[in-house]
Parts: sequence; C-alpha cells; structure tokens
Amino acid sequence: MTTTTTFTQSLAAAWQKNNSLLCVGLDPEPTKFPIHLQGRPDAIFEFCKSIVDSTADLVCCFKPQIAYFAAHRAEDQLEALIAHIHGRHPGIPVILDAKRGDIGSTAEQYAIEAFERFQADAITASPYMGRDSVTPYLAYPDKGVILLCRTSNPGGSDLQFLDVGGGEKLFERVAKLVASEWNTTGQCALVVGATFPAEIARVRSIVGDLPLLVPGIGAQGGDIQATVEAGKTAGGTGLMISSSRAILYAGKDEGFAAASRQVALATRDAINRYR
Amino acid sequence: MTTTTTFTQSLAAAWQKNNSLLCVGLDPEPTKFPIHLQGRPDAIFEFCKSIVDSTADLVCCFKPQIAYFAAHRAEDQLEALIAHIHGRHPGIPVILDAKRGDIGSTAEQYAIEAFERFQADAITASPYMGRDSVTPYLAYPDKGVILLCRTSNPGGSDLQFLDVGGGEKLFERVAKLVASEWNTTGQCALVVGATFPAEIARVRSIVGDLPLLVPGIGAQGGDIQATVEAGKTAGGTGLMISSSRAILYAGKDEGFAAASRQVALATRDAINRYR
Repeated sequence: MTTTTTFTQSLAAAWQKNNSLLCVGLDPEPTKFPIHLQGRPDAIFEFCKSIVDSTADLVCCFKPQIAYFAAHRAEDQLEALIAHIHGRHPGIPVILDAKRGDIGSTAEQYAIEAFERFQADAITASPYMGRDSVTPYLAYPDKGVILLCRTSNPGGSDLQFLDVGGGEKLFERVAKLVASEWNTTGQCALVVGATFPAEIARVRSIVGDLPLLVPGIGAQGGDIQATVEAGKTAGGTGLMISSSRAILYAGKDEGFAAASRQVALATRDAINRYR
Repeated sequence: MTTTTTFTQSLAAAWQKNNSLLCVGLDPEPTKFPIHLQGRPDAIFEFCKSIVDSTADLVCCFKPQIAYFAAHRAEDQLEALIAHIHGRHPGIPVILDAKRGDIGSTAEQYAIEAFERFQADAITASPYMGRDSVTPYLAYPDKGVILLCRTSNPGGSDLQFLDVGGGEKLFERVAKLVASEWNTTGQCALVVGATFPAEIARVRSIVGDLPLLVPGIGAQGGDIQATVEAGKTAGGTGLMISSSRAILYAGKDEGFAAASRQVALATRDAINRYR
C-alpha cells in the first residue's frame, strides 16, 4: 500500500479485485496446528503465513486477533506476518482486531502500537469511552477504526440491547453516533455480529454505506444468506464477513493450507450467491 | 503472593499495611525520562523499577498501563517489572490496565496474557460485550477484574450518560449489573473517574463495599477531597485512587525517584486526611 491509499479505498479495491466480501480471521491456536509445525519457535508465523498465501486472492482483508499472539509472547511473529501480507499481497488491508479503548493520551499509545509498530491498516475499538477515545486513531488519515456495535456473543445483549429512549437500543445509538458524528473523515466502520441478521439490517438502515465487519459465520453459527441479504449495500458490497476457525483448522496435516483454501473459496462463493 | 491469596484480600491487606488508598499508575513515556536513562535498551524497566522501589511502602497497588509498553515493543520489560514487584514487594497487587473485552474464546487468550504471561493480579476490562466476555477472567479464582463504569475523559458521557430507563444512566446500570449479577465470586471491581465525584457517590451507593479504581486525580484534575468523601466505604477504604504522570514525572534528573516519592507521600497523606 502507498501512503496515499486509505483503508476504505483499499477495502473497496479488494472487494472488486478479488470479487470477495470474505475476511479471514487469523486466530492462531498452536495446539490445533498440524503436527509438523508444532514445537517450532516460529510456528505461529509459519502457520498464518501459509493460510495467508493460500487465501489472499479470495479475501477482501485479513484480521489477526492480537490476543492469540500476545498469549504466546508472539508479537514479533505478528509484526512479521503483517509485513509479509503487505509485501507479498499488496492492496489487501489488515485489520488488527484488538478492541482497544482508553482515554486520549493512552489511545495515542495504542495507535502507535497498531499503526506504527504493527503497520495495521485498521484497528477494532470499543465505543464505551466515547468519541475522544477514538480521535487518536483518526489522526492517522490513511487508517481505519472499526467500532464495536452489536457483538456476536450471547452476552452482547446485556448492554447493547438496553433501551436508551423511545425504543432505541444502545447498539442503534452507537451506529447513529458513529455514522453521523464520529465518522467525519470517512475512516470509521462498525462490528455487527452475524448471529443477529435482523440487527445487521437495522444497522445498515441507520449507517448508509458504512462498511460493516461481521464476525460469527462458521464456528459461531451465523447464517451466510441472512447475513449478506441483511448487510449488503445497494452495490452488493459494504461487508467484511469474517471467518476464523472454520477456515484455519479445515485441515490437519501438511496439506492444511490447501484445505483452508477450499473452505475459503466455498465461503466466498456462498457469500457471492446472495450479493 | 501465595496462590491462596485473592486479589481482593491482597488489596485489603495493602490498604492496612501501608495505610494507603494510593495506586501508582505506571505509564512510562521515554521522552520524559531523566537524561541518564534515555537511550538505554532497558530504560522503561529501569525507570519504572526505580519508581516502584521508592513508593512501594506508600501504595495499595501498582497499575502498569500496557499501551505504554506495547508502543515501544517493551512487553519483556513489563514482564520483568511485574516479576520485580512480586519478588521485591510481596503483597502489593499489580493491576494490568488493558481495558480488554472480547468474546469468550478470545477473552481466554487475554486472560492467559494478563494472568499467566504477565502474572498480573487483576485486569481492567470493558463491559460493552457483556457478562460472558468477563467470565474467562473469573476462571482464575485468585485474580480480579475491574470493569469500566464511569470513565474520567470528557467523551465518557457519550454512552455512559445515556438514560436506559426511568432516569437510570448506563454507568449506573453497569454498576448494578456488576455488583448484583456478575460479581458472584467477589472478584470484581469498577473504574469510576475522579473527575466526577457526584457519580462516584452514586456508584458507591449502588455497589456497597465493592472496590473502586479511581483514575483522574493529578494531571487529569480530579479533586482529592471530593473523591475520597464520595467514594470511601464506612471503613474508610474501598478505593484505589490512581495517579500516574504527577508522580512519575515529578523530578527530571538522577534524583527523580526521590521526587516521585515525595509526591506519592503527599498524595497518600492528602487522601488519608479525608478518610
């Protein structure tokens, strides 16, 4: 990526180039790796690199989840992985799934971590601390910030479903705030879980063409047809539909990357059927 | 700490032993370090270690903010720092200020990061994703989870002040949920900013004796008297009042740690005046 291409532009270009709304989530769990990789000091990098290289022409973005690296002291492998994606597969944006959220002076440090250290193109963040907790990320004009709105886990409704006035739910208010007030520079997107298609449709009706990151298909059980029909824009894009475990662990032996490619291809095509 | 001492017990013991409600926040910013430390590869560790050793008898806990380490690729120095606190100053709990929040399978990885890798005694977390995003931390019975409730930044009110029914604000609902439903094992606490004393009092009225982590005195401008009077329990404890920059950067030369100690001592004593 050149410095003048924004996250949103890269995403739009990848949607077109790869004819894909699929985001492959990179959640490496070493105990699930093929035997021949286990025990290698760079196993996390090698595993993820193989998945990336076998699926890069099928995706609109990659989404490494930082906890899976941090739990194994593998920040250096995460740096190497993102550098590899940018070097080998230019134009495919990388979302650092970190769900950060803190006051401005600390958010500046998180922005350095995500955008300068790891060279991610976008970061996921929590909206709970409000607009000024997001501003430091927006100071990087070529980067994106993807705010949690309606999450795919059962407990997501504990707060997100609270009525904040006149029947409006908290996640709807977050969608409205982000789309109409926080997104002054076109850098924002939202996370809306695939497990709740009616709520994807509701968010889409609030936010216009804002990109939506949709985790929850695959292992979490979200339905592809319902997700796409609820979330697509008039142009048939607007979505980053994320699958992690179902793709990463499709195979168990030395052919694991080819098995992952088959699942990624089938998932991309299943998504495209409903665009 | 032995494995049978919980975070809450350690905190209560430190309140008594050091006669202190002061939490020293460790937010290392290398450009603010004394000249003699600048450029050293272990400058972050050495700076924080000096602050810790000069203030450990004056505090109820230490709170390293992980972004300030991650922005400088200094996770190894954070590990070493927490190990140093536990080894040299046993009984003083360490809160990893990380404000994490994710679905259960990912939260398990964050729990490994915080409690197994970094050996923290407690972690700060966001409530936005609901109860099941907190459960994996509670699986470590000797550890604590400190949920964001009312944060000290201006934008905190964007969501936290929304009326969720009958005049109840979102932060009040979070306080109620955590105290009455999520805290079944006595491992939870809440973050309530010092910049809003009336809201500290409101939270205290909702949560009984639940510990409150209160950032925002010092550089952020919170008032000590108002904070203590609003937040203390009947027993004159219940608070971890955090100060970072005002203590860390009190001095600029080789005597910086002694200068930090003087500010920490004055802050502890100012707090104790109103208990």
